[in-house]
This record gives sequence, structure tokens and C-alpha cells, in this order.
Amino acid sequence: MDIIVVMKSSASDDDVKRVTDRIVELGLVPYPSRSEFRSIIGAIGEKTPQIQQQLEQLPGVEHVTAITEPYKLASRAFHESDTILDIKGIRVGGPHVNIIAGPCAIESRDILFEVGRLVKDAGASILRGGAFKPRTSPYSFQGLGLEGLKILKDAGEELNMPTITEVTDPRDVETVWQYADIFQVGARNMYNFNLLMEVGKSDKPVFIKRGLAASIAELLMSAEYVLSQGNHRVILCERGIRTFAEEVRFTLDVSAVPVLQERSHLPVFVDPSHAAGKRDLVPSLALAGIAAGAHGAIVEVHSCPERALCDGPQAVLPDNFRRLMEQIKLLSELVGHRLTLWGREDVCLQRPAVGG
Amino acid sequence: MDIIVVMKSSASDDDVKRVTDRIVELGLVPYPSRSEFRSIIGAIGEKTPQIQQQLEQLPGVEHVTAITEPYKLASRAFHESDTILDIKGIRVGGPHVNIIAGPCAIESRDILFEVGRLVKDAGASILRGGAFKPRTSPYSFQGLGLEGLKILKDAGEELNMPTITEVTDPRDVETVWQYADIFQVGARNMYNFNLLMEVGKSDKPVFIKRGLAASIAELLMSAEYVLSQGNHRVILCERGIRTFAEEVRFTLDVSAVPVLQERSHLPVFVDPSHAAGKRDLVPSLALAGIAAGAHGAIVEVHSCPERALCDGPQAVLPDNFRRLMEQIKLLSELVGHRLTLWGREDVCLQRPAVGG
Amino acid sequence: MDIIVVMKSSASDDDVKRVTDRIVELGLVPYPSRSEFRSIIGAIGEKTPQIQQQLEQLPGVEHVTAITEPYKLASRAFHESDTILDIKGIRVGGPHVNIIAGPCAIESRDILFEVGRLVKDAGASILRGGAFKPRTSPYSFQGLGLEGLKILKDAGEELNMPTITEVTDPRDVETVWQYADIFQVGARNMYNFNLLMEVGKSDKPVFIKRGLAASIAELLMSAEYVLSQGNHRVILCERGIRTFAEEVRFTLDVSAVPVLQERSHLPVFVDPSHAAGKRDLVPSLALAGIAAGAHGAIVEVHSCPERALCDGPQAVLPDNFRRLMEQIKLLSELVGHRLTLWGREDVCLQRPAVGG
Amino acid sequence: MDIIVVMKSSASDDDVKRVTDRIVELGLVPYPSRSEFRSIIGAIGEKTPQIQQQLEQLPGVEHVTAITEPYKLASRAFHESDTILDIKGIRVGGPHVNIIAGPCAIESRDILFEVGRLVKDAGASILRGGAFKPRTSPYSFQGLGLEGLKILKDAGEELNMPTITEVTDPRDVETVWQYADIFQVGARNMYNFNLLMEVGKSDKPVFIKRGLAASIAELLMSAEYVLSQGNHRVILCERGIRTFAEEVRFTLDVSAVPVLQERSHLPVFVDPSHAAGKRDLVPSLALAGIAAGAHGAIVEVHSCPERALCDGPQAVLPDNFRRLMEQIKLLSELVGHRLTLWGREDVCLQRPAVGG
Repeated sequence: MDIIVVMKSSASDDDVKRVTDRIVELGLVPYPSRSEFRSIIGAIGEKTPQIQQQLEQLPGVEHVTAITEPYKLASRAFHESDTILDIKGIRVGGPHVNIIAGPCAIESRDILFEVGRLVKDAGASILRGGAFKPRTSPYSFQGLGLEGLKILKDAGEELNMPTITEVTDPRDVETVWQYADIFQVGARNMYNFNLLMEVGKSDKPVFIKRGLAASIAELLMSAEYVLSQGNHRVILCERGIRTFAEEVRFTLDVSAVPVLQERSHLPVFVDPSHAAGKRDLVPSLALAGIAAGAHGAIVEVHSCPERALCDGPQAVLPDNFRRLMEQIKLLSELVGHRLTLWGREDVCLQRPAVGG
Repeated sequence: MDIIVVMKSSASDDDVKRVTDRIVELGLVPYPSRSEFRSIIGAIGEKTPQIQQQLEQLPGVEHVTAITEPYKLASRAFHESDTILDIKGIRVGGPHVNIIAGPCAIESRDILFEVGRLVKDAGASILRGGAFKPRTSPYSFQGLGLEGLKILKDAGEELNMPTITEVTDPRDVETVWQYADIFQVGARNMYNFNLLMEVGKSDKPVFIKRGLAASIAELLMSAEYVLSQGNHRVILCERGIRTFAEEVRFTLDVSAVPVLQERSHLPVFVDPSHAAGKRDLVPSLALAGIAAGAHGAIVEVHSCPERALCDGPQAVLPDNFRRLMEQIKLLSELVGHRLTLWGREDVCLQRPAVGG
Repeated sequence: MDIIVVMKSSASDDDVKRVTDRIVELGLVPYPSRSEFRSIIGAIGEKTPQIQQQLEQLPGVEHVTAITEPYKLASRAFHESDTILDIKGIRVGGPHVNIIAGPCAIESRDILFEVGRLVKDAGASILRGGAFKPRTSPYSFQGLGLEGLKILKDAGEELNMPTITEVTDPRDVETVWQYADIFQVGARNMYNFNLLMEVGKSDKPVFIKRGLAASIAELLMSAEYVLSQGNHRVILCERGIRTFAEEVRFTLDVSAVPVLQERSHLPVFVDPSHAAGKRDLVPSLALAGIAAGAHGAIVEVHSCPERALCDGPQAVLPDNFRRLMEQIKLLSELVGHRLTLWGREDVCLQRPAVGG
Repeated sequence: MDIIVVMKSSASDDDVKRVTDRIVELGLVPYPSRSEFRSIIGAIGEKTPQIQQQLEQLPGVEHVTAITEPYKLASRAFHESDTILDIKGIRVGGPHVNIIAGPCAIESRDILFEVGRLVKDAGASILRGGAFKPRTSPYSFQGLGLEGLKILKDAGEELNMPTITEVTDPRDVETVWQYADIFQVGARNMYNFNLLMEVGKSDKPVFIKRGLAASIAELLMSAEYVLSQGNHRVILCERGIRTFAEEVRFTLDVSAVPVLQERSHLPVFVDPSHAAGKRDLVPSLALAGIAAGAHGAIVEVHSCPERALCDGPQAVLPDNFRRLMEQIKLLSELVGHRLTLWGREDVCLQRPAVGG
């Protein structure tokens, strides 16, 4: 790793020597250079994050820049080509586009099976459903817990779809592992480093949502927590950041998609449902994300959203979901990707005649 | 317009009477109702914005809600179907997608003509170029001024394209009117109400960019300033909002596109160049905007950006612009729109064989 | 709890009936009223958060407003006067101002004792020190863990000060309980509802920092999680929110202090150190917080910050901390509060002669 | 000015030569240095903002850092000690604290004289009142215009107070100059560079409010526009930035006060009224600003705010303003400043016995 220490023009020779000595003491190799006006000292070695903080407090230092990014395993420098995961035969990342769909929460066996069937028929490849719901209010529906996990597992098997569900507590990792195929770490737990390390020790893929005010680097550092424990199957998800905008719950930062893909080899999804907060906006945001190059989207669908126990207003209705899937299919090809359909990956949807 | 005053449960009869009397005094008609626990007083009439502020200070008032939006002429309630402008034969809005392209600033006759020719060949329908540049620093290149306007007019005539340029001062409106076809009011002038009123008195279209921290309602109120002066030809533009994100200059808020279109009949564009701040991200953001339903995009293009006097890093190179235009063409159709090409609107671009 | 459903002016009688019926079905009592133009339906009863979401999806509904706040036990409505905690004889809240101080992380026994002694001498009443550090990077110093907790306990006993330390994992609550007097839930764990419930089951005070993009209501809902488990000793802390500002790590939202105090009876602190990110700004922000009415501040102090393993740049030096404490003493009185000093609460600091 | 170009470790000798040659071509002097791993090229000379943009696009360049700030005349490097203005005998800046007070808008001669008298009696030294109001809505009260200016001038003369009023249009500068003592450039015009240049050509002080999403550097660049035209009498004002916070109109960024004072010699005020948006919060925010070291505050006061035509909810009532002034007096001394009272600068307010 590379650090560059720019000294003040007023820095003395002693100041420069103190910085150089400290770099050596910290186990790095200093490379000082001096122009007529200002000294600049490079440093090569295994930089830990505190080194930069310590150096910038020394007398005569103007500022300290870290040239290299703080994440390693998540970066393109570590793994140049796109990571492509295989999840029960479904390929995720690279040229593949996958749509994860299902209800916000698992409310009952009937509803999950009904919604699961219709999203699969429409072209979704992975089934979502929450059993442990992290709700802002202790008085909200908190999910069915273990009972919900069992329903999810049954639905996944019946429909022959891999499943994803949120885990919110390191103590639940083992249980969730038994019932679901992908761990979801939600936006509110993106900085829950103990949880990240726990799923990092498992052998199932981890889907990490960006925190509501997390920087791109912080999201990649959260991925790094998982990767550093040996689990290399991580999917990133942009789900909207908190801004002053009032008409949506969160502002979907579509630029995060190409920025993450430039820096990291990991697959990048978008979550248009939580960003929008209302169903009318979901298709526009889903299409925007796929157009920006996302490897997929996670979409909430419900057959009777006005009775949903969680986030009903943002659940897409079945017919609209089918229409959206047809557009996503075409759009994926337009940007050089290919929609993955469970069990019939290379078979086309009934496709309207575009371009002939 | 409708106002609803919710009284506190502790409000006295006198409090209710005072509010009701005040509503009458303000020229509105009150509609009080009383449940067992709480009085609610509706008010119908020509609400001015200060009425809400005044009512919410009265004793016993819990809160005051304005049911209707503060803008009128910009709203769908005033004009239900999409407004479609005709700008020198180019149709903007509704099903039409237009790409405005050109250099950030007009630097010389040669460069503008060169860039203009290549963006037209690639499929852009309107030519952009800045003569008055609002720069953060007084020491930056401020544009060629009148000389730039003359070059722009010549280029527009030679290339047979309508032109757009920024106006930053009410005193320049008359001059700019003589040389350009569309007034651009930049993000930094979105709240410059005197400028908006001045262009509102003219008969040329006005392209208003959203301020860097402007709400959707504020952008529509700025449009309202223009509309209220009699100029009904306004185009709105989402160009990125300021957030904590560091990797881009501004965060393109794609959700603004469907939200604006739901509330207003005016055409909505996106500006991927100023949002991204660097050329590599421009195509992704442009496609995201069109996928979200935008009526067009304004894109900066330069043939030699590393010598550009303004915003070179975000200028797209000619070859990439051509590729982007081909994707926009296909994408427009996918979302039910149609790319407008100057002089050959219904003729296809050389289109790659997609889907057959 | 009160909900108000405003119907669209176009809503039919059937629409109104459907809403009224649904309110009854949901177990609330509806209070419909009708003006010439619009129906408004109030509802009284035990509102759960999903009720609002479900109602706003019904046909003909314009919007739904919840009049009462979603938190109960944290609100002034539940407990009108300020909550004053007694923590090992130290009173926190109400008219009392307390300064919590110490190093960011517990790095060694020597440093914690040295820093502890000097902050106590300067007037701090509670000792801070991190044993489990939630670090953005898995490669950063993560704290001494259990060994750090033991040092903290010894320091607290030796200096006769209550201690506070961060807990980041529900599995650590029992251990931390044995060694520290106050649980700190950091900003990155404000939405870690399982952790909040775990500390809510204990009998030690909980100090909750506002998340970097958390609303006031969300912070109070996090407090509600603790309170709802039976632990009524909660302290709130504003520590800066993430904005576009680049010169500080986070923007200290001083307005949160009076807003929280208006809505809640719980003590409110500020954290100027994490907001500022550099020591030069810490005194200004600490004074601003106390001037705005905060019940205290948590301040990082280090005797040799350029060798600190964590957040050295924001640690205040001993001499500056002493000067700051003298100003805080005077300022507390000016705003009608009183600085609490451990073991000598009513004895003045050596006070400079202000005003005679 | 100093620029540092860090080359990629993969950069070739040709890449380095191209950068060095270009620096020379741009009129700066290059200072290349080369470590074992990476070339770094410094550049000294009159940097214009576009130089950095042009260099960072050259092949092999990793990134370009400008060491020096883009503003000159506003910086401490240009003028090391605090600028102290003399405005009709009132000293502003340095150790002096001034309170500007009055109604939001000038509504009538009676109200302005009444409010003016009471704020002067309470200790305000400068009278505010808006004649040209930049309102979000074209349907809002827009101010009395010229008639308002005349009333303001009369009030200032009668009360013997300097006056401040907002100017929103370069065409109004000459008129406003005739009637007011200080030009206010509001937050919505902070980027109105033509207006800034116009007031920069005048000989009256300019009070510039920070834009709602303006960075510290951008505020200083706006000051630079005024300073660069020869007018060296500029006052800066932090008035709240737009964030996700919902309980206030804007989030007062108190950290801006010490940050601006560190970088610039110009006086720094706060505007607690527009930040808070409601009167209950104004005293806390005003005190927070003064505690953070501000040179003053601008406060809206009204004797009958529920009939005010503009921003009534945030106007402080007379009695509360008097109490606030007493606290500000004491607080100013506590932080080493001194409240300026018109005509009796060294005479104390009736001061409660604090500290003896």
C-alpha cells in the first residue's frame, strides 16, 4: 500500500526527519523527495488504517493521502474479472441478470406459495421472504421467525428456487443457514461487523445492502469483513440513500452501480422497492438500475398488498410484475446482459417484437 | 385549494372559533367537523402560502396540512396530458425522446462546429454550448459571452439544429433571445426568481435545471414562476443532487423523473454529465434516466476534452457518444418512447439487429 | 392513538364506507366527517404501524396522517418531567450537566489510568474507554476485548468514577455488564434491534448514539426498544449526521438537542469528538451543544494522540480539556444547568472571575 | 499555488514527460520526483481551476491534488488577523459580537418602527427588514419593494441603527445602495455570481448567506467574487444546510463557524431563525452559534407573528428576544467576545449576577 505525506512549505528539516523516522518505526519504507518549495514523502508497506491518522498529526504535515483503497479482497486489484456465483445452479454476476422477488415478510404459508409461484412464472430466479424483520418500531410485526424460515424452505423446494432471507443477529446465523440459501444482511446491519464476521465463517452466499448513509468504500469494507473470514460469495446491493428528498423513502443512487463495478469484482444488485417506498415508482427504478448495468434487482411483490403486514405500499402487483419482467428481459440484452430464469435459462420469455 | 387544520385534543371551543373566524377573515370558507376527541376544520378558497403559516400559530392548533400542491400551472390538475413542445420543428415531451449535446463551453468556432457536426451525425437533435458560464471561482474561464452566442447561432444555422445556452443574468435575457432557441436556467439559478420572471416574459422555451438541494416542489415552483408570466414552454431537468457521495459530483436522483412526470405535464430531462463529473459514468446514468422514462438527456461531448476550458473530465468522447446514442435509440422504444432525430425523425439509426 | 384519513375529493360513498369498515376491522373506532368537498375520517385506538400503511392503499384515500408519535415510553406524553438517572451517585439529566471523558480505545492499563486521572481532575464525572471497537476496516485495531474491560473496571474503581463502554454484540451483553456501569450503543448499532432488546433486559443504563442518518423519531424508537423491555434508564446522544460537508467527519446537528428534549423526557448528550473528527473543533462543538441545552458531552481525550491506535486526530490534549471544562462549568450555569463533578458536586472549579 | 500530480505505478516515462511538458505549456514550473515505485510531479505557479481538470485526464495520472485553496483574498494566507469592519461606527468581527434583528419582511411603517425600537432596546445593533423577498412561490407576498426600502431608511435614521436588507437582482443594487447600509445576499443567491460582482463594485458591506447545499469552499469563493471586485467588506453567514432532518427547516451547521474562522479572516454570523423555522428553537440555536465563536447572529423578531406576511412561525416574540439578548451578552464574554450595543458599546445590559 502507498501513502503520500505532503509536508507544509514551512516544515523544517527536523519535521521531515521525524516523519521519515516514524514511517520506518511503523514498518514501512519511506521515499522522501524534495522540491524547491515542499517535501513529499512516499511510504510503501502494509498500511493499517491507523497509520494515516498517526502521521497526519505530526508537526509540519500538510496532509496525508492513501493512494490505495482500504479494501483488498473486494477490489478489482485482487480479482480482475467479474465474480460469478453459482447458487444451486443459478449463475449470479458477470453477464447474468437475476431478479429476486417475493413478499416483504413471510406472513403465511398460503401467501408465500401463491406469491412465489407467480414471481417464478413471471421470470424471477430467486425467492425472497423475511422471517426476522428489523422494524423501526418494537410495536410492529416482527416476522414469524423460525416458523417463517420453515415455510420459506418448503416454498423454495416446492418451486425449485433458491431462497434468500434476512439475518439480523449473529446468534441466528446457524439457524438461518439450515433453512435458506442466501443470507441477506440488511441496510440497518451493514455496520454490524460481528454479524458480518459470523456469516463470513459460513459457506452460503451473503447479500449485503448498502446502509442508508454508507459510502461506497464503507459498503466494500463490509464486504471485506465477510471475505476476510473466508467466504468469497458476496453480492452487493444499492437500496437507496437517505437525502432531503421527500417523495421517496430513499434516493436510489444509480451511480453506485457503475462505481461499485469499477472498483469491485462482486455482483451488484439494486433494490427499487425500498428506495421507492411506493409501488408506482418501482418499475422505473428497477429499469434504471438494470440500464445502469446492475446484475439484478430485488423486488417486493404481493398479491394483496393492502393487507400486507409489512411495507404493503411498495409491493408490486402481480400483473405489473409480469410486465416489468418482460421489459427487464429486453433491457438486459440491450446492455449486453442476459436475464437468468430458473430452470430455463436460455429460453426466451414471450418477447414483443422489438427491432424486427 | 384545500387546507385542513387539525386541532389539539385539548383545544377549547374558543380556540376552534378563533381559527374558524380567522379562516373567514382570510377570505376562505371554513368547514368545521368535530369528533368525540378532536376538532378538524377544513378550509376552501384561494390559499396563499402565508395563510398556512399564520393558521399554524394560533392557539390550540396541532398542525395544518395543505392538501393541494402550491403550484398550479405546472400541475397535472391544470393540464392533464403531457405537454409537447415544438421547437423549430423538433417535438419535445410526450412520447418523444431528444438528446441535447455539445461542449460545456463554446471555446472557439472550430471546436463548436466540429463537435456540433459529430453529435448531429450521432443523432442529437439540439445543440448545446455555454457562452456565459457561472463558475464557482472568479478566476475560472467565464465563457466567451456575446462572441460565443454569435458562434452558437451560426453553428445552429449551419447544422440546422435548434440551440440552447445558459442565461445567468436578467440583463442578458434580451441578448440571449436574439441568438439562441432555448434559454437554459442552470441549477445555481433555479432560485433566481427575477431571472425566471424575465425569461417567463419571453416567447422562447426555458430549460430549468433542478438546484443542487432543491425539492421536487421547489423545482415545480420555479417552473411556475415562468409559467405565471405567460411563457408555457418549460422543460425540467434533473441534474443530480448534493449528497454525501464522494465518487460522483452529484447524485443523479432518477426517481425525480417519474415523480415529476406524475405531478406535472412538462417534459423532464436528465443531465448525466454534471451528475457524474467523469465521462466513464455518463453512459450508465444517461441510460438509467431514459429507462426511468425521461424525455431526453443533455450530454456534454468534446473532441479533445483534456484541453477543454471547462469540465473536460465529464465530456464524452465522440466514439462513445455514438455508441450511447444507439443504445438510447433502442431503449427509448423499449420504454414506449421514440428518439427524435433532427430532420429525419422517423428514419432509424443504423440499428444493430436486436431480437432478430 | 389518532389517525386521520383524508379522502380524495373524487372519493365515492363506497370508498368512504370501505375505509370506515376497515378501521373497524382493524379494531379502531372511526369518526367520519364530511364537508361539501371532501370526507375526513378520524380513527381512535391502538394503532400499530402497519395500520397506516394498509389504510393509505385503499381506493379514494388521498393521504393518512398519524397525529400521535409512534413512540410511547420515550415521549413527554408518557413522562412529563425530565428523567434524572442516578448512576452510582452521579445524577444525569434534568438540571445536571455531566462530562464523560477518556480515550477512544483502551490501549493499555497505563494510558487509561493516566488519561482517567487527568479527566477526573479536570472535572469529568464518568470515564469512557472502548474495549470492543466497531471499526470500518477488518484490518484496524479492534480493541482489547475482555482484557480492556478488566482494565476499565479497575480504573473506574481506583478513580471512583462510573464507567461507560461500547457493546456491539448481543452475545457480549452479559460480559460487559460485569465490568462497566453504562452500556454504550454506538451510532452504527442504533438500528441493531436485537442488541437494544438485550440491553433493555438488563438493569444498567444505556447510552444510545444517533445513527449517522437516523431521524429524531428513529432515535426515539431505538430508545423505545430498550424501554419496552423494562429498562427505563436511557440516555440519548447526538453525535453528528452525515451530510455533504467535507471539513468535518459528521455535521453536529445541535438542533437535535432541543428537539429531543421537547419530545422526550430522557437526558440528551452531544459527542463533539466524532462529529468534528479533529481536535481543534471539539471545544467549539462541545460548547455549542451545552449552550443548546444538552445534559452533557462525551469527549475523547488522549495524552499522546499521535500514537493512539484509534481516532487520535480527534482526541483533545489534556491542557485544552482543562480549559474546556472551565468554560463548560460557566456555560452550564448560564443556561440554567449545573456541572456535576464526581464526589464534589457542589464545589466549584477554580473559576475565572467572570462578571466581577 | 501548488499542484501535486501523483502518477500511477504503471505510468511510463513517456507519461511522466507528457505531464511535465504540459505543466510547462500551462505556464507553471514542474518539480518531478521519482521513488522506486511511483513518480510524483509538483507544479508551482498561477494555477487556474481548469489546469487541475486538464492534468487529471492525461494518461498515467492517478490523481491530482491542489495543495492550496482556490480562494485567495478571503483566506487567512492573504490577511492573517481577523477583519474588523466599521459600519457607521459599529464594529463587526474580531472580538465584537453583533446581533442583527428585525422582522422578516417590512410589512408597514408602524410594524418596522415598533419592532425596531424593541430590538434596539433589547441590545440589537443592526436593523434588518426585507423589501425584496425571494419567495419560493410566485403567489407569495413579494415584499414592498422601493416603498419598503424608504421605510427601512427612515427607521434606521430614527433609531440611529445601521440597516441591512436583501438584494436579489443586479439591477436593484444601485437603488438598494441608496437606502440601506448593508447588502444581504441570501442563500438562494449565493451562486448568483453577477449579483455578487455588482455588489462587489459598490462601497457598502455585503452579508453573504451560505447556500442550502453550499460547501465551505464555495461560500468562500462567493466572498471571493465580491472581494475580487475591490469591495473588501464581506460578512459570512451560516444559515443551515438542507439535510434529511424533518423537524427543522434546515440543519444549522455550527461547525461551519470555527471552520470558516480558521480559513478566513472575515466575520462569521449565524442565522438561527431560518435554520429553526420555528421560534421555540431559535434561542438554543442562537446560543449554540455564539458559543461556537460566531461574531453575531441575525434574528427575526415580530410583535404579532401570527399576522406576519412572511415566516411568522420563526419570529421570536419580544420578551423572549430580550431574555435571549441577556444570555448572549454573558455568553459572548464567556467565549472571550464582547456584545456590541449601538451607541453604548461598553455599557452593560442589566446583567444578572453570574459568578458573583
